[in-house]
Amino acid sequence: MTGNPKLDRLKELLAEVDDLRKAATLLFWDQRVMMPAGGSEARADASATIGRLAHEKFVAKELGALLGDLSEDDYDYDSFEASLIRVTRRDYDKAVRVPPELTGEMRRASALALSAWGPAKDRSDFAALLPHLERNLELRHRYVDCFDPADETYDILLDDYEPLMKTAEVREIFDGLKRDLVPLIKEIGEAGDVDAAFLHGEFDPEAQREFGYTVVRRFGFTDDEWRLDTTQHPFMCSPGERDVRITTNFRPHDLTSVFASMHEFGHGVYEWGVDPSLHRTPLGSGVSLGVHESQSRTWENLIGRSRGFWRFFYPQLQDVFPEQLGPVDEEAFYRAVNKVHPSLIRIDADEVTYNMHIILRFELEQELIESRLAPKDLPGVWNERMDEYLGIGVPDDARGVLQDMHWAGGSIGYFPTYSLGNVMSVQIWERLKEDIGDVDEQMEHGEFGDIREWLGSHLYVLGRKFTPQETIERVTGSRIDAGPYVRYLREKLAPQPA
Amino acid sequence: MTGNPKLDRLKELLAEVDDLRKAATLLFWDQRVMMPAGGSEARADASATIGRLAHEKFVAKELGALLGDLSEDDYDYDSFEASLIRVTRRDYDKAVRVPPELTGEMRRASALALSAWGPAKDRSDFAALLPHLERNLELRHRYVDCFDPADETYDILLDDYEPLMKTAEVREIFDGLKRDLVPLIKEIGEAGDVDAAFLHGEFDPEAQREFGYTVVRRFGFTDDEWRLDTTQHPFMCSPGERDVRITTNFRPHDLTSVFASMHEFGHGVYEWGVDPSLHRTPLGSGVSLGVHESQSRTWENLIGRSRGFWRFFYPQLQDVFPEQLGPVDEEAFYRAVNKVHPSLIRIDADEVTYNMHIILRFELEQELIESRLAPKDLPGVWNERMDEYLGIGVPDDARGVLQDMHWAGGSIGYFPTYSLGNVMSVQIWERLKEDIGDVDEQMEHGEFGDIREWLGSHLYVLGRKFTPQETIERVTGSRIDAGPYVRYLREKLAPQPA
Repeated sequence: MTGNPKLDRLKELLAEVDDLRKAATLLFWDQRVMMPAGGSEARADASATIGRLAHEKFVAKELGALLGDLSEDDYDYDSFEASLIRVTRRDYDKAVRVPPELTGEMRRASALALSAWGPAKDRSDFAALLPHLERNLELRHRYVDCFDPADETYDILLDDYEPLMKTAEVREIFDGLKRDLVPLIKEIGEAGDVDAAFLHGEFDPEAQREFGYTVVRRFGFTDDEWRLDTTQHPFMCSPGERDVRITTNFRPHDLTSVFASMHEFGHGVYEWGVDPSLHRTPLGSGVSLGVHESQSRTWENLIGRSRGFWRFFYPQLQDVFPEQLGPVDEEAFYRAVNKVHPSLIRIDADEVTYNMHIILRFELEQELIESRLAPKDLPGVWNERMDEYLGIGVPDDARGVLQDMHWAGGSIGYFPTYSLGNVMSVQIWERLKEDIGDVDEQMEHGEFGDIREWLGSHLYVLGRKFTPQETIERVTGSRIDAGPYVRYLREKLAPQPA
Repeated sequence: MTGNPKLDRLKELLAEVDDLRKAATLLFWDQRVMMPAGGSEARADASATIGRLAHEKFVAKELGALLGDLSEDDYDYDSFEASLIRVTRRDYDKAVRVPPELTGEMRRASALALSAWGPAKDRSDFAALLPHLERNLELRHRYVDCFDPADETYDILLDDYEPLMKTAEVREIFDGLKRDLVPLIKEIGEAGDVDAAFLHGEFDPEAQREFGYTVVRRFGFTDDEWRLDTTQHPFMCSPGERDVRITTNFRPHDLTSVFASMHEFGHGVYEWGVDPSLHRTPLGSGVSLGVHESQSRTWENLIGRSRGFWRFFYPQLQDVFPEQLGPVDEEAFYRAVNKVHPSLIRIDADEVTYNMHIILRFELEQELIESRLAPKDLPGVWNERMDEYLGIGVPDDARGVLQDMHWAGGSIGYFPTYSLGNVMSVQIWERLKEDIGDVDEQMEHGEFGDIREWLGSHLYVLGRKFTPQETIERVTGSRIDAGPYVRYLREKLAPQPA
């Protein structure tokens, strides 16, 4: 109770919306992890109804009227009350602009396109996906038209994933990245190959799962508040507070599941750490995809590919796979899991080249939405740009423009959040190290509690109370800045002078 | 589309309610089977919201107005349209009578009482549960007052579980049962003991699970439309058409899981077999708890405790547990799993004495709701009646009046449906045998397809189109009648003359 009956009523209405979203989250999780295939049709109906009701309840007249009567200026900017009114108003103003019919059309088009994407990718048949991409793009144009004109059209799409971030800001950050990373990739390439052949072989999935549990338990995963399940495409979701669910794909021929588990743990621990006072309100989750990705990358890369981490865990991993890893020493393993090498597939890319995959997509997305590039010309431009940025030829569209599901799903503006996350992760990490000192030594002893608690009390706890930029400034003292990230990559991965 | 715009609109509104109920079902299933304990609080909120919305949508003015405009008499009685209007009207007329506040109070009281029940049972502490039982009873009285006076107060409660069934009818059926079963139990007792000691020992739960899968797969369980999971208290639910979920408790010291799996399969195959044209409407599920139980009992007892079934499956079970069952021949095993012996616990009771447990509860429930018995006097009366009906002394309330959760949950009127199910199961089974002949021979060959298809096309397909009595009459040609059931028990289980 806030002492203000209108605010209390607003909270009540928002709690109802939140409950519906949790039900929708569970319907989604269950579909991906548990549901027998036969349930698809009924599940599509139930998900559509719950999604529609959540939207209807959120854009309801009563809620709008309460927002009209309430003012964030009556409260201290940092207070729960001011944040709740401010963030809800922003969400509401966006939600009421999009007609439910358009939302429905986008959802249907996305479902159809995603169904076409799998087979198109399997057969490397871009023509089969093209009409769907054209349809998605047309609907995105109609979506953009629902909003006031922005500096750049792409701003409106980006805002759905990274609220209040401008395309121009991202471009500046990415231009800096490109300037620094292209030569770094070249230097590393010239320094010669790193042996990582031993990372490909027979790795029993059940043993991988057990090792994954061992790692995330050390990080803070507990059976009474978390689940770890198996899926094709790893993801994290939280169908209720104190109920965090991560999933991983345990591939039998490599160890990527270990890193995927740490990645999803990072997403999970962010949701897990949101201040309980924000629960059941629109403030009760991570603030943006970019900041979320900063945390998945922190646990996957800054921690999970560090020397300290493997000093502690490598002997255990060798015990699990003695045949495969017994002959490989810790340094060789460390270098292999940090090998930088231009490759075709984004999700398998290393810490450095990954960003070039993103920059390529970010540029193509802008060209698409500004009609400077027609969807039919995507494969050609994609292949040219891959050669330009990473120096590799694309043998077929399956391993080129068809590799990701995002565009089939209708998501334009999502990709840049991955690299923004990388950039932010190191800014946050450097602040953390200023406060808690030699984290590498802690990790060498298998201690992750201080790291988790620092991130929790400085970042996770904030939820959506502030904008992503405000959040980053509060945590790090500065705006988003690629400098620390580039320095980190260079220090960690540039060839050492002989 | 029905060609009648008002009926189409009614269907649309009902589909939305059905989607909400499916979401509620999934929230429930997940809570019992998958959810980490930490999620309880958020899940309680989400479930309450979804349940409330489903109710609000169902009792909405528009839906009531459509029912006012539509008439079942405009359609053939057997048609989908007439059934939809008739059944929805009945559900609606009941739903609008109960104020949401009372529903909320009952739900809260039930949740509190269920939380108290576990510890009270563990400590055999009836006094700890008593205030909750008194509160539940008080709320049930208020619930009864929402409806027009009935012949007997108990009728109103019974109607929630066995629609349109009268207490007087049940009493007549149960009086007949009591008259026939009490002497049967005595005869069996005098004939001497059956050895069933080998059913208690070490039975690896994982092996039980595998055997359970083998059995239900033979029955018709397929991975693309079913799930079988582990829970403390076995149940079945279907969070979507073509998505049937059964659960079993695999106890390490006996084989009850095998029968529990078959029992839940029976519930599941009933839901699975409902005519697809009834999906996403109030007609799209089993017609009553009694008829549902008739099917769980059919697959558990009429099939799963038959000679034919074990002729086929016993050698396989022996292969799974060679140490425990190798020395036991088929006849001895058959007699052991059909052993009749008065005992304290309802859920472990045999086919004959089970009904006495139900009759006892049915009588006490009537006395409670008619204020002829005070909740505080329950333990004494319970123990007297156990002595009278089954000739056994109750050592403590944990194994007496506290053993079931139903009354703590606020369910009064539920218990009789178990024995009604037993009675109906044999009526249906006899009709089935008239049509498809020697089912024992089919079962001996592991063939259950004809049985499943006969039950499907005669019973399951009907869903809730007709009342339970109409449904039974359509399937069997007669009203509910205990005669066939008693004859079945006597033929199967009475001591053979020497």
